[in-house]
Amino acid sequence: MSELAPHTAHFASVPEEPVFALHRRGKIEMRATVPVRDAYDLALAYTPGVAQVCTAIADRPELFHRYTWSANTVAVVSDGTAVLGLGDIGPLAAMPVMEGKALLFKEFAGVDAVPLCLDSTDVDALVETVRLLAPSFGGINLEDISAPRCFEIEDRLRAALDIPVFHDDQHGTAVVVLAALRNAARLTGRSLGDLRAVVAGAGASGVAVSRILLRAGIGDLAVSDSKGLLHPDRSDLNPVKAALARDTNAMGLEAGSTESALVGADVFIGLSGAHLAEEAVAAMAPDSLVLALSNPTPEIDPRLAGRHAAVVATGRSDFPNQINNVLAFPGIFRGALDVRARTITEGMKLAAAEAIAEIVGDDLSAQYVVPSAFDPRVAPAVAAAVAAAARAEGEARD
Amino acid sequence: MSELAPHTAHFASVPEEPVFALHRRGKIEMRATVPVRDAYDLALAYTPGVAQVCTAIADRPELFHRYTWSANTVAVVSDGTAVLGLGDIGPLAAMPVMEGKALLFKEFAGVDAVPLCLDSTDVDALVETVRLLAPSFGGINLEDISAPRCFEIEDRLRAALDIPVFHDDQHGTAVVVLAALRNAARLTGRSLGDLRAVVAGAGASGVAVSRILLRAGIGDLAVSDSKGLLHPDRSDLNPVKAALARDTNAMGLEAGSTESALVGADVFIGLSGAHLAEEAVAAMAPDSLVLALSNPTPEIDPRLAGRHAAVVATGRSDFPNQINNVLAFPGIFRGALDVRARTITEGMKLAAAEAIAEIVGDDLSAQYVVPSAFDPRVAPAVAAAVAAAARAEGEARD
Repeated sequence: MSELAPHTAHFASVPEEPVFALHRRGKIEMRATVPVRDAYDLALAYTPGVAQVCTAIADRPELFHRYTWSANTVAVVSDGTAVLGLGDIGPLAAMPVMEGKALLFKEFAGVDAVPLCLDSTDVDALVETVRLLAPSFGGINLEDISAPRCFEIEDRLRAALDIPVFHDDQHGTAVVVLAALRNAARLTGRSLGDLRAVVAGAGASGVAVSRILLRAGIGDLAVSDSKGLLHPDRSDLNPVKAALARDTNAMGLEAGSTESALVGADVFIGLSGAHLAEEAVAAMAPDSLVLALSNPTPEIDPRLAGRHAAVVATGRSDFPNQINNVLAFPGIFRGALDVRARTITEGMKLAAAEAIAEIVGDDLSAQYVVPSAFDPRVAPAVAAAVAAAARAEGEARD
Repeated sequence: MSELAPHTAHFASVPEEPVFALHRRGKIEMRATVPVRDAYDLALAYTPGVAQVCTAIADRPELFHRYTWSANTVAVVSDGTAVLGLGDIGPLAAMPVMEGKALLFKEFAGVDAVPLCLDSTDVDALVETVRLLAPSFGGINLEDISAPRCFEIEDRLRAALDIPVFHDDQHGTAVVVLAALRNAARLTGRSLGDLRAVVAGAGASGVAVSRILLRAGIGDLAVSDSKGLLHPDRSDLNPVKAALARDTNAMGLEAGSTESALVGADVFIGLSGAHLAEEAVAAMAPDSLVLALSNPTPEIDPRLAGRHAAVVATGRSDFPNQINNVLAFPGIFRGALDVRARTITEGMKLAAAEAIAEIVGDDLSAQYVVPSAFDPRVAPAVAAAVAAAARAEGEARD
């Protein structure tokens, strides 16, 4: 970790005073979009005028989307059990992150987002609460909910609701990783099918990254958790990990460490926070691709990894190739809301990854496999791709 | 109703086209209050900077109120079962009203309010959902929930939560009616203790108005529902009405109609929508006070009532003395949030009514017993009075 010290004064950590000053009273507010200057305005926006709109929606529920803010509004829902790298800090302490997410939704894609931190960690209670809230929203962004609870919560809500439900820690990360890997493969003259990857970490993001890579046609994939490689013979796996053990490791690696699996592998994707030794990267295949994504401390100092790998990416803004979810979630929800999608399908996520990768275009280099988080072309391109995929799959209602 | 026809072209109804045009895409939005122009902004507002704020709140939960938007934010919660005069139109059709409420909270008192329409009418489910949502908010405004469910929901939430829970259909109306009645009594040289009142309607607002008048020291009070006067001998009363029957009608009126109770009475308060004949007003005591508050059609045409009564008030903006909840709820929540009140007490409501009445001051006349909804002095005066009452009662935390 001391390897990173020269950079921490930049963005890996930021000084305390401006952070707390900026967060004073929060980072978002509600605003009126119509005037209430006088009694006539009030008669239009509130009683008696509003009764006409209510009556119209009661008669024709499809008008709800035209005459309320809900069609453009996403709930950012957390129970505070897996916040950033901080862990289970509870709903109150999670709120600044959810507000930040709401801020990014609005600034990057014009999506109105409401942060909701719920006072329960019970799966049934969380599912039921979000289900009852859903009529007020056009989509649900689940955030910072611990694994494996997050999988069941998302699955049950997807089944219960006819609006998009998207656990960003899983799928936002997966989409951006896939985009980066597509471009890194292209840079080194390969396709995804040529690559053997090792994913360190079988939590929310590790599972989702593995799943999207399998769907996108990765050559082979092995996944490890804190106890070693996932393997069908292991008896200590939860159902999600057990399923992943069955669907991965086509090469049939025996149970072992992440390091042993990396020997001769093409890709390392770190989502675990565990330290990775420089020797393990040196033992990978030529032109290896290293995505050390733990924050704020990557699994390996990117400068050490760069001695051996063809491409190195991290989650940090002070190194090249930042894998940042903000490349994905604003545009994905923008596209889904624009066509009033019923859900976010695997095809919509793949289309989003494709759109992010394509922005890079001919500027592709070892230092530029994903666009900047602030590239204004990204969210519109992702939105258009997601909307088109939703239409193609028959999931669009507008 | 045809008596009102010449006025309906004004505000009692409004033309369809501007109403629907104004409601297109809703009436509110989320806005950022901090910039996200570049990577440094992002590092302060989101990762890694935000982690410092999360950690600080996890260590000292009292900092939550300083560093999130929640301390200034109210949830406007409805199940859509009693919307305006439209009844049980469901959560989707209720949303334009809840958005309107959020709009008024912001414009009149700077309170950020989030409209939440819940997909259940089950009391247990509604209570549990709001309980789990509560950490995200500084207060809960319940709205348009049918009686008698609204009483139990409010009672249980008040017991469960340490933030203000306020059913505006009950208490907002009650506060403004009390303010109007105080001034109307003063205009006619009486105090509340001199008055005998009849309240027509024992739903949410009828019960709350009756309760606040009893607490404020009204001389006598009788309440009627659709079956006649509440009376301890009636066997068809729900628990809330039965309690009201025990606490009212000190004069011992026998079971009968609203009209029979009005003979010689000083005050009529209509909250039922039932028609009141001119003869019934004529039979009241001299200098009678008539508050015909049903919307959009008052129980009696105010011009007919005015032939006999000293003061007439309605819920309409096109007649004098509009009894409008917007005089109360923005300032009440503003004051409660300003001092981080644990609850809204009876004393805080009485203080709000006093503050509204006092704005009228020496301008008091038969046409001016309550301030205009747009009088900019109202919300700050109500907020100051409510905050002071909260402090005096030991319910303020800031």
